[in-house]
Amino acid sequence: MKRIAILGPGLLGGSIALKLHSLASSHVSLWARRADAIAEVMAAGCAGIATCDLALAVKDADLVVLCVPVGAMGEVARAILPSLRPGTIVTDVGSVKGRVLAGMGAIFSGHARFVGSHPMAGSEQIGFKAARADLFDDATCIITPDPDTDPAALGEVTAFWRQLGCRVVELLASEHDQCVALVSHLPHLLAATLVNTIAAGNAHAFSVVGPGFRDTSRVASGPPAMWAEILRENARAITVAIDALIANLHDFRQMLARPDGARELHDFLAVAKSVRDRIPFPKINNG
Amino acid sequence: MKRIAILGPGLLGGSIALKLHSLASSHVSLWARRADAIAEVMAAGCAGIATCDLALAVKDADLVVLCVPVGAMGEVARAILPSLRPGTIVTDVGSVKGRVLAGMGAIFSGHARFVGSHPMAGSEQIGFKAARADLFDDATCIITPDPDTDPAALGEVTAFWRQLGCRVVELLASEHDQCVALVSHLPHLLAATLVNTIAAGNAHAFSVVGPGFRDTSRVASGPPAMWAEILRENARAITVAIDALIANLHDFRQMLARPDGARELHDFLAVAKSVRDRIPFPKINNG
Repeated sequence: MKRIAILGPGLLGGSIALKLHSLASSHVSLWARRADAIAEVMAAGCAGIATCDLALAVKDADLVVLCVPVGAMGEVARAILPSLRPGTIVTDVGSVKGRVLAGMGAIFSGHARFVGSHPMAGSEQIGFKAARADLFDDATCIITPDPDTDPAALGEVTAFWRQLGCRVVELLASEHDQCVALVSHLPHLLAATLVNTIAAGNAHAFSVVGPGFRDTSRVASGPPAMWAEILRENARAITVAIDALIANLHDFRQMLARPDGARELHDFLAVAKSVRDRIPFPKINNG
Repeated sequence: MKRIAILGPGLLGGSIALKLHSLASSHVSLWARRADAIAEVMAAGCAGIATCDLALAVKDADLVVLCVPVGAMGEVARAILPSLRPGTIVTDVGSVKGRVLAGMGAIFSGHARFVGSHPMAGSEQIGFKAARADLFDDATCIITPDPDTDPAALGEVTAFWRQLGCRVVELLASEHDQCVALVSHLPHLLAATLVNTIAAGNAHAFSVVGPGFRDTSRVASGPPAMWAEILRENARAITVAIDALIANLHDFRQMLARPDGARELHDFLAVAKSVRDRIPFPKINNG
């Protein structure tokens, strides 16, 4: 059986542990920074080893999955390096890839085989208490190999995510960062901006909200520290996306104002509907 | 038993009919423009009378509920006028109130008693096939009386929505239009603008979407013709909301760019989360 070390028992790391436990196809060790997180994991019985000792967690691992925030990844990677067996495969769940990959490549080079991953699953909730074995069912996992990526390691990481239930897509790190700037980071900052705009405009409006606003704004309830880090980390691609969105909002404003703008406004909405209706969304409600 | 006429068997009108049928506390007549819609309603067995004849549908009604698009409301109101008994109460489900109320007041004045309503329920789906008896459970219904509103009619309309499962909130028509511009119309146009921005930026990004984007963009799959009408009708309040949002997006962009913007960006997200987490959302998933 494979030995898999999960570093960080949050929503993603915890969900990986729960799913692997249900599959009973690997030995799972889990590292957490805080002792109370260890206690939660032990109570759930989803890891053979749960420890605050990084070296112990990764010692015999075939695969290490970094499930810590993007900003903590470098520190944790450097800390485990001396304890990894040569050739150990390392992957992550980080939402930004450009700088992470460069950093990981430099840290692991010659010691371990790193392959970047980003499972597009999660929710506005955080921590092991929100973890669930079916979080990855039908989700997309983006893997970001580069020319230096070891083909065998790429195969193992691909198989790992498929085993968890994901559909795997390969992208270059730069294309990954542009795509998630558009479909993940921009929606996130828009949701927060929407909430703050309404609060400043007429907070009374929150007392009459319907299901539309609830869903449109859901991700704004996500963890601010984690998201601030992600958004700063991917600032360049996000800025391009914000500028494009602002330009489109200006156009929309003109369509609203022009006496003859009705047709154009209708077509703008019709195009959006037609595009969205063709998107292959994950079928199950793991958000 | 009260006699209630529902004009328009779409998502809202159909859901009202289904709920009233389950309550078995009133005689329901239903008008539809198209014969095939009548057939659907008859098959569901939720109306005593289902007819394409407006006069027949409203003839003995105590309460008439206009469930047609905002743009068709004046025409239907004028058409039923000769068939209403004096003092009949009329309400609607329109998403914009300023001009609707002025129009309805003028049409019904001296003949019937009009009270504006706007149940904050619905989804991106349309038509009787999407209707459901529990659509209004736990939803907010905004009622917009003005100084001329008959108090007895206001009481009847309030009781009607409560019977359907709604929490009723009274707002002035102008405040209604400002509030829904912020929590309904702005989110809608943002969802559409987001989809169109991504499509122009990198349509490949749609192949890696997660649950966040699915929910943030959901309302963009709503009916374009209906929404184009609503947005044009409430253009003034919406334009104010768009301008405020664009200003906030510019601020956000600056926070991303400034080397010392991390704290400010975190606080922006933290305020949004804290505001959203306190919003009393409808509990059930009727969206």
